[in-house]
Amino acid sequence: MATHDFEPTVFHVTLGSHEPALRIASGDTVRTWCVDSSGYDREGNDITEGGNPQTGPFFVEGAAPGDTLAVRIDVIRPNRARGVTGPVVAANVVDPWFAASLPSGLDADWWILDLEHGTAKLENPPAGLESLGELPLDPMLGCFGVAPPRGQAISTATSGEHGGNMDYRGFRAGVTVFFPVFAEGALFHVGDAHALQGDGEIVGTGIEISADVEFTVEVLKGKCISWPRGDDGEFVMAVGNARPLDQAVQHATTELMRLLAEEHGLDFRASSALLGQCIRYDIGNVYDPAYTVVAKVAKGLLP
Amino acid sequence: MATHDFEPTVFHVTLGSHEPALRIASGDTVRTWCVDSSGYDREGNDITEGGNPQTGPFFVEGAAPGDTLAVRIDVIRPNRARGVTGPVVAANVVDPWFAASLPSGLDADWWILDLEHGTAKLENPPAGLESLGELPLDPMLGCFGVAPPRGQAISTATSGEHGGNMDYRGFRAGVTVFFPVFAEGALFHVGDAHALQGDGEIVGTGIEISADVEFTVEVLKGKCISWPRGDDGEFVMAVGNARPLDQAVQHATTELMRLLAEEHGLDFRASSALLGQCIRYDIGNVYDPAYTVVAKVAKGLLP
Amino acid sequence: MATHDFEPTVFHVTLGSHEPALRIASGDTVRTWCVDSSGYDREGNDITEGGNPQTGPFFVEGAAPGDTLAVRIDVIRPNRARGVTGPVVAANVVDPWFAASLPSGLDADWWILDLEHGTAKLENPPAGLESLGELPLDPMLGCFGVAPPRGQAISTATSGEHGGNMDYRGFRAGVTVFFPVFAEGALFHVGDAHALQGDGEIVGTGIEISADVEFTVEVLKGKCISWPRGDDGEFVMAVGNARPLDQAVQHATTELMRLLAEEHGLDFRASSALLGQCIRYDIGNVYDPAYTVVAKVAKGLLP
Amino acid sequence: MATHDFEPTVFHVTLGSHEPALRIASGDTVRTWCVDSSGYDREGNDITEGGNPQTGPFFVEGAAPGDTLAVRIDVIRPNRARGVTGPVVAANVVDPWFAASLPSGLDADWWILDLEHGTAKLENPPAGLESLGELPLDPMLGCFGVAPPRGQAISTATSGEHGGNMDYRGFRAGVTVFFPVFAEGALFHVGDAHALQGDGEIVGTGIEISADVEFTVEVLKGKCISWPRGDDGEFVMAVGNARPLDQAVQHATTELMRLLAEEHGLDFRASSALLGQCIRYDIGNVYDPAYTVVAKVAKGLLP
Repeated sequence: MATHDFEPTVFHVTLGSHEPALRIASGDTVRTWCVDSSGYDREGNDITEGGNPQTGPFFVEGAAPGDTLAVRIDVIRPNRARGVTGPVVAANVVDPWFAASLPSGLDADWWILDLEHGTAKLENPPAGLESLGELPLDPMLGCFGVAPPRGQAISTATSGEHGGNMDYRGFRAGVTVFFPVFAEGALFHVGDAHALQGDGEIVGTGIEISADVEFTVEVLKGKCISWPRGDDGEFVMAVGNARPLDQAVQHATTELMRLLAEEHGLDFRASSALLGQCIRYDIGNVYDPAYTVVAKVAKGLLP
Repeated sequence: MATHDFEPTVFHVTLGSHEPALRIASGDTVRTWCVDSSGYDREGNDITEGGNPQTGPFFVEGAAPGDTLAVRIDVIRPNRARGVTGPVVAANVVDPWFAASLPSGLDADWWILDLEHGTAKLENPPAGLESLGELPLDPMLGCFGVAPPRGQAISTATSGEHGGNMDYRGFRAGVTVFFPVFAEGALFHVGDAHALQGDGEIVGTGIEISADVEFTVEVLKGKCISWPRGDDGEFVMAVGNARPLDQAVQHATTELMRLLAEEHGLDFRASSALLGQCIRYDIGNVYDPAYTVVAKVAKGLLP
Repeated sequence: MATHDFEPTVFHVTLGSHEPALRIASGDTVRTWCVDSSGYDREGNDITEGGNPQTGPFFVEGAAPGDTLAVRIDVIRPNRARGVTGPVVAANVVDPWFAASLPSGLDADWWILDLEHGTAKLENPPAGLESLGELPLDPMLGCFGVAPPRGQAISTATSGEHGGNMDYRGFRAGVTVFFPVFAEGALFHVGDAHALQGDGEIVGTGIEISADVEFTVEVLKGKCISWPRGDDGEFVMAVGNARPLDQAVQHATTELMRLLAEEHGLDFRASSALLGQCIRYDIGNVYDPAYTVVAKVAKGLLP
Repeated sequence: MATHDFEPTVFHVTLGSHEPALRIASGDTVRTWCVDSSGYDREGNDITEGGNPQTGPFFVEGAAPGDTLAVRIDVIRPNRARGVTGPVVAANVVDPWFAASLPSGLDADWWILDLEHGTAKLENPPAGLESLGELPLDPMLGCFGVAPPRGQAISTATSGEHGGNMDYRGFRAGVTVFFPVFAEGALFHVGDAHALQGDGEIVGTGIEISADVEFTVEVLKGKCISWPRGDDGEFVMAVGNARPLDQAVQHATTELMRLLAEEHGLDFRASSALLGQCIRYDIGNVYDPAYTVVAKVAKGLLP
């Protein structure tokens, strides 16, 4: 149950079986920090290649393929007073005939963060948004996960069974995320904090920010899952990462039915009756190469 | 501003340019009722062919192609103590390899509704759900809309620019839905009430119920929209109906950007900055021939 | 076995249960003509509303829901020396980020047809295509089919189980197309001839042309199919119409397996072994609201 | 212009920046062999882990990121008299409701290859296919390509800009395939020969076979492409790998338009006029995580 303070020096733009940055035990907590998605740190210095560079990987003693790694997100604390967002809705989230109407050649937007009060406001609001004012922060992790199967090293631009760039705003502090373990030690990576993000990450970013991050790991020996799962206290969740969204829905729904069978004893007949009237779907991102859908159900409804 | 009590005698399983059932004026309210999706009325009598039979159409004086019809849903009151749901999650919402694991040959589930307290419980809960207890009702309209363009008559199984079988649980009492008008009089149809439904309508039904329905219409002359829109007091909404879900997202996002431009003066640069960090997506159905996605943004954020 | 010479005077922009234009018997042949997709006839006169206006419908005596209507396309003869094509690849068939690079505001292209030699050449070839020369015609029917189920009237812009706007260049003279019958008399509609078209109809048109058309119908009593099928002498075919293309593939593959079971006695085990190594897929259109895929297998391989 | 005889001893189940197996020069030819997709060699010995194990990678001197690697497939010669195929059409290529009708629990099919006459026949044809007889072989490469960008190592189960598991039957001897170079030396991998395969690889395999393979490489310095391209003498081709098929169509069409601009001077106006009436689409696979579509146009039509 140790707590580690870890200062990263190397960052990775793939999730893969990289040299462990730190070895930790099940139950341990790590206090560390992440650069923003472009590789800038809390001082605004560009210290590493962009593209959701990851802190880690953290080798969790005892985690082996076929196990599950539980990661409780304890803290996501933006540590810089300025964050950046994409200025235009992505062409793929509007009708094809409409895409040519979107403005082009624009500079990114900058947001001023009030870290004390937990708010953000546009530095130079475009015409029409002068009155927008301050938005409450809702910090989340965009890209995090474990080493993928088969020795793969997969870009932090995308996601899969191993997690990765899911860009789901429900991955905030207090949530526990479960990952299937594919490599010895699980090799947990973390990065790409967003101070705020809408559903879908439709401008290609949240408010991209460097952040202090704390998390606590636990190895669930012999527990085998197929896709990331989550628990935010109110809901149990299953994640699907794929294109099109329809396939992400299929992955997430299947995994949620398996979760209810394994953990709550509901066969597919019972889970159908429950989910038919009570399931909730959240759209993570519709921007990255793989889209993300979360299927969830309130824990209060479960036996 | 008349209020009409309308007793339907004919029901339609297409939305089309059918003989008007009643002629009403802009501003009028209609009190009527709808059979359930299988054609059963409040007495449990099978009075018409199934498949989301529609009450109406209502010819709204003055509505012409190029206008918008606003329909405020005033009341959706289930009027029968038993409703029915599909017993198994649809094959198309799970992974293809998993579909063969779903149970088959099952009877539908029945739910007992307590209309006084606004709750529902499974009549014969499947094993594992004995403790589920009573769920609060959240009545909604599954299928409603106007006559489609070009003289078409489109099945109430599906949806399009004209509305139709959207199966979105956000279409509850208190919401105003806006439809593009494609035919003289708009020809509003309404039916397919659900006492409760999860996101996605993944068992192919909500709790299907006959219901008393009240609504109030208003013609917005010269206002031209492309897809249904909505306003629930908290959010402005735009609806996209299509497969795959990705295309429904495209339709809904495009229509929401046009709404913000037309009604709130936000060009696509400004709406991008706002929606990127503040948009919300809801999944209506992922079961019908056309899926439904709602893109929305809080009214409190708008200039 | 009569042959009817039919002069159309009314054209429809939906496939639906319209007043029959002519009643014919199983085995009869019809010689008639179709305007082009914009409603222009052989003289270049604009005689009806555009949007794939249909000649017919033809009521085939004895055809009833649950039967199949076989339509042999005997002749598709362009009857005008000029045809028109869309000038730019549609935004939906290129990458979203690329769509804004496509030229806009262009006039349609005109092609000069040499009806005697069966060739077409661009009237004003754009720079770079001056040397293109004459292309051999390959006339086809873009939009044809029967009245859809449930009393629907479906736009000639799209397609479904009833056929419609499939825009598949394999529907040429000599091919027999089979349609499920949904309405008394089947109500066959025909129009939208193309003198030539690439796969996918990616500029939104083939060389749109008015044409003389001959076809011969046969009612297959009691034969029930789910999607259009075809036979071009070399291949048996099954058609799927849907978005995304993946679903069109699913419909077409399923229907081809059912065809092989019903007509050639191959269970799904046997058809899997055959199709795995021998199936061919053609892409009809990737432009219309529903895309079209044809799954086919050489007749010489069948028992 | 050397010819190398290379005996592989290590095989990879990812395409990545692995230790080069051999260093060759632009213009060189390699004669080597590949195990089948399950890791069995010409003797039928299981010599390496399954999943499309790759021979190589071959480091091509002078190839650098931003260049193109041309690989002419000189020979694909099955070197074993037995090959294997999946016994059942994959659940994802049929309608979801139909998937439960597919047989399950079946053994793979074996095919007897007559290498002298170039034919294959089922060893134990299922009932109904007894008369199928011998099919002509049409050997192809299922999985081959270069190291992907960003230091990734991507599973040989899937495909991307770097090539990979495209399972396109048009990649036969005589074809030149062009790959974007993402890593020093390009790092060409090759494996997964099929003696025969239908469109779509819908049973999840072709006739999987070990094979002798010869290929010749050429580095095109400074030529930058985005997706694999090909030339089979008759057609120029562009490949798109993605899900859904619609996105594969978008990638392939975009890349073909760029090819026509770069190599044949056709701007998008001209390529639209040509491709609209003359493009051909082939479906590679609809089975793997990423599907494959090839867009092509006859070379005889190009200026």
